[in-house]
Amino acid sequence: MTSSTPSSSLPPAYALNGAQSDPNILGWMQGHPPPMDKRIQQSDGSFFTFPKTRWAFSHTREIVPTSNISKGIGAASTLPTTLRDDLDAASCTVLGSDKRMTWGEAFDANYTDGVVVLHKGIIIYERYAGALTPERQHWAFSVTKSFVGTLGAMRVFDGSLDPTKLIPHYIPELKGSAFGSATVRQVMDMTTNLQYLENYADPKAEIWEHSRAGGLLPKPIDYTGEPSFYDYLPRVKLGNEYAGQHGQGFRYKTVNTDVLGWILRRIASEGRSERLGEQLSKHIWSRLGCEQEAYITVDSAGTEFAGGGLHTSLRDLARFGEMMRQGGFYNNQQIVPEAVITGICQGADKEHFASAGYNLLPGWSYQSMWWITHNEHDAYMARGIHGQAIYVDPKAEMVIARYGSHPLAANVHLDPTSLPAYHALAKHLIENP
Amino acid sequence: MTSSTPSSSLPPAYALNGAQSDPNILGWMQGHPPPMDKRIQQSDGSFFTFPKTRWAFSHTREIVPTSNISKGIGAASTLPTTLRDDLDAASCTVLGSDKRMTWGEAFDANYTDGVVVLHKGIIIYERYAGALTPERQHWAFSVTKSFVGTLGAMRVFDGSLDPTKLIPHYIPELKGSAFGSATVRQVMDMTTNLQYLENYADPKAEIWEHSRAGGLLPKPIDYTGEPSFYDYLPRVKLGNEYAGQHGQGFRYKTVNTDVLGWILRRIASEGRSERLGEQLSKHIWSRLGCEQEAYITVDSAGTEFAGGGLHTSLRDLARFGEMMRQGGFYNNQQIVPEAVITGICQGADKEHFASAGYNLLPGWSYQSMWWITHNEHDAYMARGIHGQAIYVDPKAEMVIARYGSHPLAANVHLDPTSLPAYHALAKHLIENP
Repeated sequence: MTSSTPSSSLPPAYALNGAQSDPNILGWMQGHPPPMDKRIQQSDGSFFTFPKTRWAFSHTREIVPTSNISKGIGAASTLPTTLRDDLDAASCTVLGSDKRMTWGEAFDANYTDGVVVLHKGIIIYERYAGALTPERQHWAFSVTKSFVGTLGAMRVFDGSLDPTKLIPHYIPELKGSAFGSATVRQVMDMTTNLQYLENYADPKAEIWEHSRAGGLLPKPIDYTGEPSFYDYLPRVKLGNEYAGQHGQGFRYKTVNTDVLGWILRRIASEGRSERLGEQLSKHIWSRLGCEQEAYITVDSAGTEFAGGGLHTSLRDLARFGEMMRQGGFYNNQQIVPEAVITGICQGADKEHFASAGYNLLPGWSYQSMWWITHNEHDAYMARGIHGQAIYVDPKAEMVIARYGSHPLAANVHLDPTSLPAYHALAKHLIENP
Repeated sequence: MTSSTPSSSLPPAYALNGAQSDPNILGWMQGHPPPMDKRIQQSDGSFFTFPKTRWAFSHTREIVPTSNISKGIGAASTLPTTLRDDLDAASCTVLGSDKRMTWGEAFDANYTDGVVVLHKGIIIYERYAGALTPERQHWAFSVTKSFVGTLGAMRVFDGSLDPTKLIPHYIPELKGSAFGSATVRQVMDMTTNLQYLENYADPKAEIWEHSRAGGLLPKPIDYTGEPSFYDYLPRVKLGNEYAGQHGQGFRYKTVNTDVLGWILRRIASEGRSERLGEQLSKHIWSRLGCEQEAYITVDSAGTEFAGGGLHTSLRDLARFGEMMRQGGFYNNQQIVPEAVITGICQGADKEHFASAGYNLLPGWSYQSMWWITHNEHDAYMARGIHGQAIYVDPKAEMVIARYGSHPLAANVHLDPTSLPAYHALAKHLIENP
């Protein structure tokens, strides 16, 4: 799902702040059984509304069908911990304001469910709130895309995926759709031109049709839409910008990642089904030495939601970020080729990105489903709605993994208090190693 | 769910035998996406019909909501393996017939998805078919009950559960139901007298209402039944045998285990929700050194299906059986007090059991949700519909863990070819150590 929208509106006053919306205080799903008005279910779609989300994002698989991403049977890789108490006081200026905010204050202000900070591979900060615990998997939303994009870049690197080919070369079913004239690279960098609105604040936006097709939202009794992701994707039409041409500008649309996921499934087949979750397990999860299985939502055809269905523990998310920071070498093995990560970090066309109008992300670009800041530290991010993030700062040797359940989907609502905080923390660590 | 029904009817000729119904051959859920007629979904309830079950029982969490049972973050306990090739030829006489069948032949004849045999703690036989793999969790059905019964017996042993108390002492909500006049012990040994038919061959049997309330089967559009297990249980009425008295005879009814699960949740609360899955993880799963998480189906109120929702890998199921065989000591620790297991193995009233009319199980009894054979080897079992089983043979130092997807639910259909095979294997191992 979307990670940021080109809106400059500031968030409204929220009914409940971070501490007040703590799901343990509100009593969601507590009791034997929980009282009717404290139950969170898929059937009415309310699990996707704040403040129920503060419980639901840490319990998705108890609400909808999911598939395991195995970590294998070995012990977890060591994640050394030396907590520091100087981070909470580190402060930054809120974007678009002259207000100062400390790292500690930002935790509740951003409805954080958990945050882990690694410095030189050591956990220096780890904090949880609400429904999230170290053992529990949280919804990563579009952070999923950076996993899938990395897998895609690995396939380009090993030659099994040609980024110059048109999509129908791999997925003939998409010939009649907008993807029929797009290249693999355009899909990977989201420079496709699609008639597909990704605005969670608009109930008529196509992202909601897509979510219903994928089974995340309940299908109404009179539902006449598509039954699954791969029934939906062939219906996506060309957008009307740039005379219907692809490759002219960055436009963030979740369906691109689902198309990339489809391609990855198909090219990996070798005569049998190799699902995306199996690939994520084989190439990444089982090699990182994760503590927990990951899981991913599936639609009624068993198709994983490549655009935003991944759930991981926070500590495992941090492991993935640390593997990226270390050039792909982690847990005593090369997991992602270093050249793949170097390529991602170089980013893509900044003018393409600028055309999307993200005022809070000046000079950024988007490459293989990663957000590249091009800042003075060469930081890059994986981003998901409601505040999911991996922030890798190579210069500061810092990785931040963060899960949250902000009341509003678009990251534009928490970028002002999170992006400067990440950078301030990085500078603090450089100055106070 | 039921493990055996008192029917003596022999199975009909099946449309497809074990090899023909292999889900890989039938192509269920294969392809990107699978063709419409190869999809298995919850919405039409067909995932519960043979031969789709041969895929579905190994993929339940991709179809319905489930909850994790954590194994913790340590490495798996060692499960030494020295495979023997002499077991397949071991043969037995089929119950109620003079036909001979070998262990190897019984595998397909019983629609086995996987079987592991431990002898003195060493895997001497391990075989999988169809959709099941060593890493994958399979539906244990009523084998779940033996886990919950063991937890219950542990609580009786430590004094936190009084088996002589009436059920409303712990669950006041059940005061007006048949359970209002039953003791905890009667529930644990299933000598309650309930108006509740557990016959999967009868579409009007109460077991199906129970399954719909629990969300395993889709609720029809015009559904007017109970929304969850704990809404359903208070409606269970007294049966009309024994002048409405409990404690007069063994009657196998899944709802008893759901009541025990409810009690376990409530007495463990200590001011907060401690769900059954958390208890199973804390007291059993995390201590066995399991290879995989287990998982359990949940209803719309987040209540785990204590009567039959557990899913485990086959190797982990074998670990649990081996822990029982070793008097509760496994993975370098006492997991279940030895006295608890001794108590279970003593069994219960054989006359109570005989009154239920299981012609294929003469002289057996049922204690704390375990099936006690009282045979010459003092073997005992956990049993689930469609052929799920743990068979512990103390004298032969043998444990069999078995998962299957037999076309018919009731174990009466595979007892004739499995029970004598288990005993023959035990005798073979004693004669050929």
